[in-house]
Amino acid sequence: MYEVELKVRAEHDRVRPRLESIGAEPAGTVSQVDTYYDHPVREFGETDEALRVRRETDDEDGEGERAKVTYKGPLVDDGSKTREELETGVGDGDTMAGVLESVGFEPAATVEKRRERFRHGEYTVTLDTVEGLGEFVEVETEAEAIDPAREGAIEVLERLGLDPADGIRTSYLGLLLDGT
Amino acid sequence: MYEVELKVRAEHDRVRPRLESIGAEPAGTVSQVDTYYDHPVREFGETDEALRVRRETDDEDGEGERAKVTYKGPLVDDGSKTREELETGVGDGDTMAGVLESVGFEPAATVEKRRERFRHGEYTVTLDTVEGLGEFVEVETEAEAIDPAREGAIEVLERLGLDPADGIRTSYLGLLLDGT
Repeated sequence: MYEVELKVRAEHDRVRPRLESIGAEPAGTVSQVDTYYDHPVREFGETDEALRVRRETDDEDGEGERAKVTYKGPLVDDGSKTREELETGVGDGDTMAGVLESVGFEPAATVEKRRERFRHGEYTVTLDTVEGLGEFVEVETEAEAIDPAREGAIEVLERLGLDPADGIRTSYLGLLLDGT
Repeated sequence: MYEVELKVRAEHDRVRPRLESIGAEPAGTVSQVDTYYDHPVREFGETDEALRVRRETDDEDGEGERAKVTYKGPLVDDGSKTREELETGVGDGDTMAGVLESVGFEPAATVEKRRERFRHGEYTVTLDTVEGLGEFVEVETEAEAIDPAREGAIEVLERLGLDPADGIRTSYLGLLLDGT
């Protein structure tokens, strides 16, 4: 399975009526706070790795924080953008952060966003509001074959009045570090 | 609250009839596999720290592994044996181990044990079978005041026919590393 994902900058107020008109169904809103860490001796920027602790809460109740720790390895194949990803839930995000900091990892960057999700057929449309960056729309799906999935995602973007040519490949972390 | 704990070497077959005669109640058996990690650049032995991933399964069903990650800091006060401990559950022990190994931690030692627990009033009596070390009995409790709790634990040991003077203060990891 591949994860196919397209992301563009877009004002949410212009996208919402379109989401309604194509019959996309609201699928919940969460807030995510991602902390990325510097390694005590390795330069993650150079090795193309990342270590992250994510804390997520449902905006409906605001309770019951879920946390995860994730390691992202370097690209193993430049063409397919494939990288190793190791991720597991943790009972308490603050404690996990404390463990990492105790053994020499330092918080390097934080990405905070509010994610409002909608379902549209096989696709998830997410309205992301990212602190310090602004508003984005992501269209994603999982598929066995990349090409038809990407074509479908492009069609969803177009039906929302968005231009697939505006697609951004850089992660939110990357955009924040670039200062754009 | 303090955790008061006494540990002695003892053959379990000699202790079990005594446990029954004093009315101690079986409280379940678990298997624990603890992996301790070397830091990529710090000498944990010198800094008196430890990083551990514990995987625990109930022996009754053998299913549903629970895993935890734990950081133990150096002693902050030599008299009271107090050290910082940060511990949180993780969804999957193998993935947590994979994250740590990916960022440069190497498995340094493994402690495997079977722990058969009994309750006796405020005390927990544990029959530990430690791979490579043999059989031990631990008596422990949590208390606001250390001295009466320790006296009570000594009394439990004596009622089990064990000699508190045989008390071992070294951890199982320490015993394994010492080769005793």
